[in-house]
Amino acid sequence: MLEKLEKINLSDAARAIGQLYVYDKVGRLNGHVLSVVNVEDRTLDFHVHEGSDELFYVIEGSFQLETEEELIALNAGELIIVPKGKRHRPVVTELCRCLLIELEGTLDPTNH
Amino acid sequence: MLEKLEKINLSDAARAIGQLYVYDKVGRLNGHVLSVVNVEDRTLDFHVHEGSDELFYVIEGSFQLETEEELIALNAGELIIVPKGKRHRPVVTELCRCLLIELEGTLDPTNH
Repeated sequence: MLEKLEKINLSDAARAIGQLYVYDKVGRLNGHVLSVVNVEDRTLDFHVHEGSDELFYVIEGSFQLETEEELIALNAGELIIVPKGKRHRPVVTELCRCLLIELEGTLDPTNH
Repeated sequence: MLEKLEKINLSDAARAIGQLYVYDKVGRLNGHVLSVVNVEDRTLDFHVHEGSDELFYVIEGSFQLETEEELIALNAGELIIVPKGKRHRPVVTELCRCLLIELEGTLDPTNH
């Protein structure tokens, strides 16, 4: 299989979007999509992904992941995996650049 | 589903291993394993994973990923996805702390 590979600089990829709340697909891994996004000052509604675990990795900044049990502060260089079926919502105050990984088709435009 | 989640600080997780070449599983995502490892001064043999794409993310340091076409330098904050069936090998000189993600059962103790 002759094909060139493309590396991804996560910070550059997020900064290149130039907008908040826009998800940019930067890669695929065994049916999963890797997306980067810039978020600021936004609290999503609680929601559940029934079909996929979801990985959040903080590239820059920080956010809080809220579940029914706790509020977890995540800083740059930290990741968390939300198991499928687990109610959660991101709580974002300062600008946060994130990588998300989940099975393709899991994200919808309003709920992550 | 009441259960506490555990965040992972990638740099701390790699440093906590305290040894080179030892893979520590730090999470699972839809049948995939997330592993961190510290590597220095090592070039693996060329190999192929027939059943899984493989993600390499550089937490600290740098390494080169060699394919049949090219030698790709990866630095901290950068990732690359090697598609299943693609011949590759990591070439590591300086100390590099990495995250790997691939389907469970893909890694063997000698070939990554």
